Amino acid sequence: MKFTFVTLFSNLIEPYFYDSILKRAVEANFISYEFYNPRDFTKNKHLKVDAQMVGGGAGMLMTPQPLFDCLDEVKKKNPDAYIIFPLAAAKPFRQNDAKRLAKKQNIVFVSGRYEGIDERVIEKYANEVFSIGEFILTGGELPSLVMADAISRNVEGVLGNADSLTMESYENNLLEAPSFTKPEKFENLSVIKEFLKGNHSKIADLKNNLAICKTKYFRPGLVTKKKTK
Amino acid sequence: MKFTFVTLFSNLIEPYFYDSILKRAVEANFISYEFYNPRDFTKNKHLKVDAQMVGGGAGMLMTPQPLFDCLDEVKKKNPDAYIIFPLAAAKPFRQNDAKRLAKKQNIVFVSGRYEGIDERVIEKYANEVFSIGEFILTGGELPSLVMADAISRNVEGVLGNADSLTMESYENNLLEAPSFTKPEKFENLSVIKEFLKGNHSKIADLKNNLAICKTKYFRPGLVTKKKTK
Repeated sequence: MKFTFVTLFSNLIEPYFYDSILKRAVEANFISYEFYNPRDFTKNKHLKVDAQMVGGGAGMLMTPQPLFDCLDEVKKKNPDAYIIFPLAAAKPFRQNDAKRLAKKQNIVFVSGRYEGIDERVIEKYANEVFSIGEFILTGGELPSLVMADAISRNVEGVLGNADSLTMESYENNLLEAPSFTKPEKFENLSVIKEFLKGNHSKIADLKNNLAICKTKYFRPGLVTKKKTK
Repeated sequence: MKFTFVTLFSNLIEPYFYDSILKRAVEANFISYEFYNPRDFTKNKHLKVDAQMVGGGAGMLMTPQPLFDCLDEVKKKNPDAYIIFPLAAAKPFRQNDAKRLAKKQNIVFVSGRYEGIDERVIEKYANEVFSIGEFILTGGELPSLVMADAISRNVEGVLGNADSLTMESYENNLLEAPSFTKPEKFENLSVIKEFLKGNHSKIADLKNNLAICKTKYFRPGLVTKKKTK
């Protein structure tokens, strides 16, 4: 999997690949990444990439020309390019998207800055648009990283132990049950007793019930009648 | 606003403050940040911070002792500490949380790694728990940054132009309407004609209708009867 980041601020993104799981994934050639800067494609002498909105509205937008030329170049160099725009106004990115997109060869993330991107760029180039949540960020760099991280975990080989991928939150529309390590008692706080008794079918039942409780409490929308049997 | 990041991987977080809006906000003293590493608080000779789950389950969890000692120290040094755990199993972080939390003096983000954190740590120290979305990441570092970024934008002084904060997506449960810059026509793609005619009340009406359409399409749950009048 190659991630191509189109951004004015590659140094907000690149260091995230310098440590931990993604670093190992890069070193083992499971994933790779590259950057394109729209500013390198401007045709105006001041290298401007933004301009006033038309029709009123505060703030600046990224203009079409640098992004059109940049994305044409990206597509020429990457015939498998699958172009994603992280936007505030888009469908939510979810775990099944991370799994699905992990099968692509090359994903391109286009990060907006300022108040956003001229709609024509999105219309022409977007294969998909995603929002990572109902909040506003200073740019598309963090959402691009969030999606790259979530997708990477599903690229074969990236997580050493394939088991770690099973039974995770959202996998079957349930949040995870609380989990514990030793010691059984720490500063007066105990592990749930049943977890220590070793009856695995009882533990599994209890975990499932706790997961349903947690999901009903935090994410009532996720729980379907079928899941709660 | 001071952000305190409790993490095993500060170098995944810190570079995000080296450029763009957050860099300027740090330089102008609107925000500051610091790091604590739970590994510095381990009492075992191998400096281990993780252990097997009890009751079965694949993968490792962060154990109570290093985090208890680390967070006790954080609270001692920061009497205003407001402790947030980014978790997969938690309520969704939203724009009104970003606004509300921007009024705190000190927010502490505790990043989990491996399969998560022993539940007793969360029980004892969490002031709030948030999930940034229905997907799984390799650790709590990106969600911590996402929340810090969204909160920072609402800290007074951070965005130069206070106007940029008005009329944003989610502010009134509506996504933003499409927006455009000059030129009016670029490679055969035109700005919406009404935007160019200068009748501001007509433009405002049209933008509102476009915003409602976009919201109904991408986020039907956000649209209330009241909003669509």
